[in-house]
Amino acid sequence: MNLHITDILRHKRDGLPLTTAEIQHFVRGVTDRTITDAQASALLMAIFLNGLNPQELTDLTTAMRLSGEVFDAGPLGTFTIDKHSTGGVGDKTSLLIAPTLAAAGLASPTPAGVPGICVPMISGRSLGHTGGTLDKLETIPGFNTQFNLQQFFDTLKTCGASLIGQTPTLVPADRILYGLRDHTSTVESPNLITASIMSKKLAEDLNALVLDVKTGSGAFMRDYADSKHLANLMVQTGTLAGTRTVALLTAMEEPLGRFSGNWIEVWECIDIMQGRVHDMSEDLVVLTDVLSGWMLHLAGKADDPQAGARLSMQLRESGAAYQAWLKIVAAHGGDTSIFHDPAAFHKPTATRTLKAETSGYLASMDCTEVGWAVQRLGAGRLKPGAPVSAHAGLEMHIKLGEKVEPNQPLVTFFTEDESLLAEPYEMLRATLHFTPTPPTIQPLIREVITAP
Amino acid sequence: MNLHITDILRHKRDGLPLTTAEIQHFVRGVTDRTITDAQASALLMAIFLNGLNPQELTDLTTAMRLSGEVFDAGPLGTFTIDKHSTGGVGDKTSLLIAPTLAAAGLASPTPAGVPGICVPMISGRSLGHTGGTLDKLETIPGFNTQFNLQQFFDTLKTCGASLIGQTPTLVPADRILYGLRDHTSTVESPNLITASIMSKKLAEDLNALVLDVKTGSGAFMRDYADSKHLANLMVQTGTLAGTRTVALLTAMEEPLGRFSGNWIEVWECIDIMQGRVHDMSEDLVVLTDVLSGWMLHLAGKADDPQAGARLSMQLRESGAAYQAWLKIVAAHGGDTSIFHDPAAFHKPTATRTLKAETSGYLASMDCTEVGWAVQRLGAGRLKPGAPVSAHAGLEMHIKLGEKVEPNQPLVTFFTEDESLLAEPYEMLRATLHFTPTPPTIQPLIREVITAP
Repeated sequence: MNLHITDILRHKRDGLPLTTAEIQHFVRGVTDRTITDAQASALLMAIFLNGLNPQELTDLTTAMRLSGEVFDAGPLGTFTIDKHSTGGVGDKTSLLIAPTLAAAGLASPTPAGVPGICVPMISGRSLGHTGGTLDKLETIPGFNTQFNLQQFFDTLKTCGASLIGQTPTLVPADRILYGLRDHTSTVESPNLITASIMSKKLAEDLNALVLDVKTGSGAFMRDYADSKHLANLMVQTGTLAGTRTVALLTAMEEPLGRFSGNWIEVWECIDIMQGRVHDMSEDLVVLTDVLSGWMLHLAGKADDPQAGARLSMQLRESGAAYQAWLKIVAAHGGDTSIFHDPAAFHKPTATRTLKAETSGYLASMDCTEVGWAVQRLGAGRLKPGAPVSAHAGLEMHIKLGEKVEPNQPLVTFFTEDESLLAEPYEMLRATLHFTPTPPTIQPLIREVITAP
Repeated sequence: MNLHITDILRHKRDGLPLTTAEIQHFVRGVTDRTITDAQASALLMAIFLNGLNPQELTDLTTAMRLSGEVFDAGPLGTFTIDKHSTGGVGDKTSLLIAPTLAAAGLASPTPAGVPGICVPMISGRSLGHTGGTLDKLETIPGFNTQFNLQQFFDTLKTCGASLIGQTPTLVPADRILYGLRDHTSTVESPNLITASIMSKKLAEDLNALVLDVKTGSGAFMRDYADSKHLANLMVQTGTLAGTRTVALLTAMEEPLGRFSGNWIEVWECIDIMQGRVHDMSEDLVVLTDVLSGWMLHLAGKADDPQAGARLSMQLRESGAAYQAWLKIVAAHGGDTSIFHDPAAFHKPTATRTLKAETSGYLASMDCTEVGWAVQRLGAGRLKPGAPVSAHAGLEMHIKLGEKVEPNQPLVTFFTEDESLLAEPYEMLRATLHFTPTPPTIQPLIREVITAP
């Protein structure tokens, strides 16, 4: 039967479910450009408004995943697993989780000598008010994130983890559709977000996937019900596509950990892996262990997620995670000598500290506003392709629920361009909200969603 | 305030009404191509699914109307009025109404000597299963429908009516949006249909407009409620835009009049204007007088539509309409000598007649199927820009509700390519449905919609 995009458009427009063949025809036509941008955008809007059922969403995700080159982890003979975060402020768990899982894999090789667990992590750059793993890693001199799939495979084989950027040939349909969504106001669709994220993650050829779905004032989805809906869609889609998928709904009401920026986030992780856990980094360490714990459990290294979290802690405290980290960074061409004194590598040209004006409890903030402040200090881009500042960012001195006295430091700002200090300073001053009595604080881990 | 198409898309996507400025920004951006096809198509789909309120629809129609050159009837000092049909089979009322109104206008000139009523009729070509006024007129040797606005103005000034095709500069936004709708499955939206039709009609700078909204098996909207909804939208939009607008919902369950095709429809009209009304043309004459009656009433030449219909009849029976017709055709370069014997000008190269197989009452037909049969005899185009056959078409010998006996002729087919006879013959044979007892037939005029 011949399929026509105009019929497919009519079906979705009229609220009918699309067949697998119709969805494959759409994704193929988008990729080979036989379907026009106008047609693709009209269908994206129809999907935005009329939705997709679970089968349609899985079909769309799978068709997008297979739209270009596909990474084949099979020859590794390992268990492949990844973690994906929907994006937050100061969210640097990838830098800790990848070496932790790699350490577990290196400690339990396959019969062929390959790490028993591999983390093929394809990451992104700064998006909106959130930072990007690639931008952080690239502050390490020499660190190359632009591997082809062979280099990626080889690094996984020796190190158990590799962190790279999207290749031009992987999931090309998502690149095209995302570009159209971005300029046709069809980004904020739970279905389209799920297809975009999951097609790229499943293209890593995963046995299992743990999702960190952020919720709250610093998340792309602030509303809890919306976040939970997205988490359910992603778990459902991963599961239907044959990858064991778990989602954790986690609070993003304040920056995670101590630092938010680029190099300073790497520094914070090195401190943790070297055994120095700053008070402000405690939430980061807890979240890392919970996420790693789920991953170690799914990979068969722990009977339950709690045992997994304990194993994650051991791998960190024994130094095994740090050794794996050194191996991964070296494999990517990064200069590990700077890790001996990470604080010394931090060279902002201007700093400023915001202090408390009165006493009170830190009750809330618009954490998206904090994320934008980090970006405007120079950590983000004004336009795609522009460079980011390695040393811009901010350090939080206080967590939600804590009490401060007048003149106590709240936030320290770092930048490589002094003229960029004033606006973020004012943004933070305006958004930090204090109360005279202790506020109620959301737990960090709000809910875990597993497949039915 | 700066307007951004992404915000406009987001508003309509989220069900918010668009402001006048937002709609103007959209139409301007579509016309000057600063808004991409992808963005325009996404908005068309959002409008298709989320609708437009009366103010938005009027704003869209007005912005489209003003997107290019605009005809200015002001210097004529006349009353301008037009009729528009949503399209049917054998629908040739324009060829009778334009000269009828012109005759009334010529008989009552303005102080400056211009016809007191002018009909600035911008018509279309064959679309889908329906015929086009321009294709019919162009069967008259020499008839030029491609006037610029100055020629249009001059012809109106001397003749009281002129019938031309769209100029390249008139309502360019509709040309672009219609092209996008056609390939993104967003044609069948009552709002977008209304904006497309009304922007072009209102660009004629009208004081009043009478709409013939077809309903039934030969109409683009078969369902009565859908047709009525469209009629209400068009009346509402014309009224809000400042043009007195009336819509008649009329039955399109069988071809209107005797002939359906190109030249044969002109021939039928000439017969009527020369005083020879064939039995099969009676419905055509009735509908013409009702539509003209409303127009004459709105133009102030009759106290009510019924008096207007009587005046229309007088203008035809006195020969005044035919004299106006000769003047209009001559002004367009047409050869009026062929009107002395219109039957003789009809030169199909092959004909065939479908006869009744049994006795019975003609109860129903799929009149869209009849329209396609006319097109496939050669009266329509296989692709845009192709020529049409002047002499292809069909003659009906029986109306709905009439009784036939075996072997009585039902339909005669005409073509200029004998190989094209077989399929239309079978289509008509299959679609004419007979019953043993007299069926119930819908009245020709089903409802009149005037502004509230």
